[in-house]
Amino acid sequence: MKPIRICMVGAGRVGKQHSRSILGHLPNAVCSALVDPNVDILEATGNEFEYENRFTSLEEALEAVEFDAVIITTPTFTHRELAVLAAGEGKHVFLEKPMALDLEECDDIIEATRKAKVILQIGFMRRFDPEFRAASERIQSGEIGRPMLIKSLTHGPGLPPSWAYDLKTSNGMLAEVNSHDWDTLRWLTSSNLERVYVETANFKGAQLGVTTEHFYDNVVVSTKFENGALGSISGICPCGYGYDARVEVVGEKGIIQIGSLSAQSVVVCTDRDKGLSTPIYRTWPERFAWGYINELKHFVHCISAEEEPFVTGEDGRWAVAGVLAANRSFLEGRPVGLAEVMSTPASSAVRPS
Amino acid sequence: MKPIRICMVGAGRVGKQHSRSILGHLPNAVCSALVDPNVDILEATGNEFEYENRFTSLEEALEAVEFDAVIITTPTFTHRELAVLAAGEGKHVFLEKPMALDLEECDDIIEATRKAKVILQIGFMRRFDPEFRAASERIQSGEIGRPMLIKSLTHGPGLPPSWAYDLKTSNGMLAEVNSHDWDTLRWLTSSNLERVYVETANFKGAQLGVTTEHFYDNVVVSTKFENGALGSISGICPCGYGYDARVEVVGEKGIIQIGSLSAQSVVVCTDRDKGLSTPIYRTWPERFAWGYINELKHFVHCISAEEEPFVTGEDGRWAVAGVLAANRSFLEGRPVGLAEVMSTPASSAVRPS
Amino acid sequence: MKPIRICMVGAGRVGKQHSRSILGHLPNAVCSALVDPNVDILEATGNEFEYENRFTSLEEALEAVEFDAVIITTPTFTHRELAVLAAGEGKHVFLEKPMALDLEECDDIIEATRKAKVILQIGFMRRFDPEFRAASERIQSGEIGRPMLIKSLTHGPGLPPSWAYDLKTSNGMLAEVNSHDWDTLRWLTSSNLERVYVETANFKGAQLGVTTEHFYDNVVVSTKFENGALGSISGICPCGYGYDARVEVVGEKGIIQIGSLSAQSVVVCTDRDKGLSTPIYRTWPERFAWGYINELKHFVHCISAEEEPFVTGEDGRWAVAGVLAANRSFLEGRPVGLAEVMSTPASSAVRPS
Amino acid sequence: MKPIRICMVGAGRVGKQHSRSILGHLPNAVCSALVDPNVDILEATGNEFEYENRFTSLEEALEAVEFDAVIITTPTFTHRELAVLAAGEGKHVFLEKPMALDLEECDDIIEATRKAKVILQIGFMRRFDPEFRAASERIQSGEIGRPMLIKSLTHGPGLPPSWAYDLKTSNGMLAEVNSHDWDTLRWLTSSNLERVYVETANFKGAQLGVTTEHFYDNVVVSTKFENGALGSISGICPCGYGYDARVEVVGEKGIIQIGSLSAQSVVVCTDRDKGLSTPIYRTWPERFAWGYINELKHFVHCISAEEEPFVTGEDGRWAVAGVLAANRSFLEGRPVGLAEVMSTPASSAVRPS
Repeated sequence: MKPIRICMVGAGRVGKQHSRSILGHLPNAVCSALVDPNVDILEATGNEFEYENRFTSLEEALEAVEFDAVIITTPTFTHRELAVLAAGEGKHVFLEKPMALDLEECDDIIEATRKAKVILQIGFMRRFDPEFRAASERIQSGEIGRPMLIKSLTHGPGLPPSWAYDLKTSNGMLAEVNSHDWDTLRWLTSSNLERVYVETANFKGAQLGVTTEHFYDNVVVSTKFENGALGSISGICPCGYGYDARVEVVGEKGIIQIGSLSAQSVVVCTDRDKGLSTPIYRTWPERFAWGYINELKHFVHCISAEEEPFVTGEDGRWAVAGVLAANRSFLEGRPVGLAEVMSTPASSAVRPS
Repeated sequence: MKPIRICMVGAGRVGKQHSRSILGHLPNAVCSALVDPNVDILEATGNEFEYENRFTSLEEALEAVEFDAVIITTPTFTHRELAVLAAGEGKHVFLEKPMALDLEECDDIIEATRKAKVILQIGFMRRFDPEFRAASERIQSGEIGRPMLIKSLTHGPGLPPSWAYDLKTSNGMLAEVNSHDWDTLRWLTSSNLERVYVETANFKGAQLGVTTEHFYDNVVVSTKFENGALGSISGICPCGYGYDARVEVVGEKGIIQIGSLSAQSVVVCTDRDKGLSTPIYRTWPERFAWGYINELKHFVHCISAEEEPFVTGEDGRWAVAGVLAANRSFLEGRPVGLAEVMSTPASSAVRPS
Repeated sequence: MKPIRICMVGAGRVGKQHSRSILGHLPNAVCSALVDPNVDILEATGNEFEYENRFTSLEEALEAVEFDAVIITTPTFTHRELAVLAAGEGKHVFLEKPMALDLEECDDIIEATRKAKVILQIGFMRRFDPEFRAASERIQSGEIGRPMLIKSLTHGPGLPPSWAYDLKTSNGMLAEVNSHDWDTLRWLTSSNLERVYVETANFKGAQLGVTTEHFYDNVVVSTKFENGALGSISGICPCGYGYDARVEVVGEKGIIQIGSLSAQSVVVCTDRDKGLSTPIYRTWPERFAWGYINELKHFVHCISAEEEPFVTGEDGRWAVAGVLAANRSFLEGRPVGLAEVMSTPASSAVRPS
Repeated sequence: MKPIRICMVGAGRVGKQHSRSILGHLPNAVCSALVDPNVDILEATGNEFEYENRFTSLEEALEAVEFDAVIITTPTFTHRELAVLAAGEGKHVFLEKPMALDLEECDDIIEATRKAKVILQIGFMRRFDPEFRAASERIQSGEIGRPMLIKSLTHGPGLPPSWAYDLKTSNGMLAEVNSHDWDTLRWLTSSNLERVYVETANFKGAQLGVTTEHFYDNVVVSTKFENGALGSISGICPCGYGYDARVEVVGEKGIIQIGSLSAQSVVVCTDRDKGLSTPIYRTWPERFAWGYINELKHFVHCISAEEEPFVTGEDGRWAVAGVLAANRSFLEGRPVGLAEVMSTPASSAVRPS
């Protein structure tokens, strides 16, 4: 089988993570080109992963090199343009979360890939984590009955880049940090959201010198699903203590817990006053090591087998819709129905001027 | 030291639990009288715990027997009358949660015990659980920094008696099941609530034949505290799978988790397809075995030593206030400030007509 | 019911622990007298637990005060004399482990209590620990099938008093620290031992200034049972890191693990490089809090109800036999059958001259 | 970089496992040939992993195809011949455990690879498991002080093929199942063994129809190390309940536990009487998924970088020596010094006639 040739768009943390997966674990894929407008980052990542072909724009790469697919890991506000461009050239698209800034952008991406008959997969790697996957199958099998209440949390250790918490350039932490939670809620309950309510807090902004309007580092979302279930998302960033991603679902027949703070079954005690010590997940690549590998194996498989991927543009779009409603709830201090943001022209729906 | 003579008011589940603690673990207390208007229950519990003196009303007990204190375990709507009566006769009062139905009732009880200079302790036994206690001390010591986000849950296995989920006779599940969570939030954050928002769901009501208006078996509360922190309470009853009470607090410096689903460090595996099996807490007396013993030891100690108890009427009153605001949020579908229920004449604040 | 009047013989750590249980959790028992030949310890413990009657010998206590039972917590080499004396005066006997120094002493104690028709209970509190108890019941029920392999360990934090590790005055650590393991092996397998083999190591003796002949601070015992099962005991003292007592049994159908290093479901993380922190059991009273309470409740119950206790002199005798065989294995560097020590006149069987 | 061409020798379970690793996770290696004398197995595995070149002997493969290295996964009694042959042809050798049947065979393999200047790596994949690796580094760093006591266990779910438990064709379960434990003991204590003592039991042999002489399904080994430390190995096969591999080391300053029964952080409860359920490791490929991948990545790296592998023939030889001494202890019922088997001509040292 000829390996799938990939153009990595974005040479930052996520671009490096995916390059690592391809070089280390994907015998059926090759890294054909690396794209990043920042030359320093382009060269550093290019050297680290021995990319022969490096470009400062996707356009240049498309002209100069042959490849089958792009993996887009750039900031959210660039997603539509890059994904539509790649699809237009017949390239398969693996697109990082959040899919886009608003529903119109999502629709453009979905439309472009559909028209070009290329694969579109969104980077919800938790769906490929063995624990999340096993739990999903057990829920689907009916083991805990119909889900009644689901809680999902993501707490990240450090402050993200400023564009990622500025509502004007992204949709803020609920989008950049909690994207996965939105998808997890919908995936595990098999239901769309109906209504959300948000509370936020800003504890560390001032001490970190963040003056961005609407900044928050703690958020709690209450959700009501179309099927009647309840949900909750919490986000904290920066939390400092580690990378924390856990889910709990209570169904009519029982409970399921997914994930743990504990990263390894290695327990040490050297001081009875300090107690036992166990490693915590320090970073998202540690926590979702298999998820990152598996999602790209799946992407490559779907290209080869011409199959629909497990995570589609539609999934990405629903996560964006949740964020839009949540941000409106946050800004207006009231519960907001998903219908409000999904019926409204998307471009005007979310962001403060 | 002369043992403290106790009149147990209420011969149901909680009255039995406290009788068990006294007979089994309180050498400094004696069960002097048992009161219950239901003669069958009075006799059954009286026989089980060998109460010599049994009465169908507190008035009779007060006339017939000498004792130092009452433990009131009757339904919430009887609390004010019984507590005020006992205090008026100079008896110390241990009062089960929820303290009362509204703030006016709370005030009456606080006033009566204050005037009579007797001890008033509310039955928040989690404050006496060794794990909750240790966690509180570590939070107080600053180990995890200023609390930013606290989550507390109580899921109970079975459907409570109908008065306990009827908003007209109690304040519903948020009061009867989640009372402890309200107290835990305030205790561990050292802050009063500012605002709450509630979502509820009714999954099992119909199949259990419950037709009570406003019935719900799942609830999620989002909270904002006066000090800026965020919180969340979840309640499920009946959940079926066990008795589940856990708390998680994230502070500026770290996280603390209190409690576990696992009731015992006994792990069994007899089938590699079914996996490991560990006992879960089946009931609240199992989960809070030490809490129930310790809170009565504390009550007896406070009587003997003439000290203020660790859980006061004020604490009980704040938990009631949280419930009142939450019920209003539930009924009106909007976030509700605590100020709304605390400034309003309490009697009109909460219950649907 | 008239409370059982107890004479506590031995005012050291274990005497204090049992006094604490009686005062705190045994409404049906009273501390009638305290005996210790060391006046300083007698007064300190007497004051702490408000003993009115204090004596430097059991003889004096027997003459001066009325009581129903003794709890003997003195060094092993005093057990026979004290237990036989108490039994001779018709007192029930709760006797700490190890029961005695050799089988002849065990026989004398059993004989004396049998003749006097008084209760004899040995202080194997693990049999009253809720986790050990639940595990035993599950094994008895056949859940894991016939036990094939059992491992039991006891690691204690600090160096015991010198008599307790000197083979000339006790039977050394295998007796003083691992007594419980010998009983656990026999209890959970329902089989007597057939053969033992011992390896020891001395890591910290020199640095702690211990020059006692035959001192060891680490020991591993391999055992073969009469019913064909295998076993293993490990002992470390001082281990420093906490009090550690765990058991694992594999049966024909499955495995059961009893106990854990973790003392509380309280998990903290404040530094992602240091990881999670959980309390460890610091001491034996922490680990076996319920075991200590429950074994005395059982003793008092057996006295009142005139029942045979759950842990008898026979159980204590088998633990001593295991130690005697193990010490011979240790000194002679070879596997030793229990038959060797049980057929030999006990007084000559074990200790080096 | 040109990928390393590998000839897989042995198409059974382990050959398949390594093929899976290469195809799934080793972009720098290719499966050039498959060898197995059993044509059915050869074809089945060949088809499953799409081997183009298949042979019934290594000789044929050597003649017909070019490759750089062999991975030898055949029964132990074939190891010497195959490894020496491959080395003689200048092929690098990855050799599964146990390395060989006796020390003479080990020496021949070491000598042949040394002479040919090719890599020789033994398949102790636990050394490449992230948990074992992290623990080793922490022990090496001095975190728990000098190791005093180490316990390692391997319990396998099913009965291995008959050659693997027949002392005449292998060295029995201590070699075939517990090979890794012998290596782990030496690796983590940084010490060679001095003496071993073995107890065995046969619980299930009869019911499984095994009539092989000296069959046992349970074994406990006590060990003494040259540096004074103590150790213990336990083996059970078939244990039925899962694949269980755990280690515990106590050092002068503390304890470290490696591994757990729990295979996933997915916890389910649907019945409060049955309690919590967590997946257990069902098989060795599940438990050591990363270990199997990492050890081959390491082998390929060592070939490319011309580095000495982390696990050498010397390591394999010491594990064989431990087994030889243990088997003599088993057959003669006495502790056996390693010096006895290492000084004796190896061919006469171990196996019963």
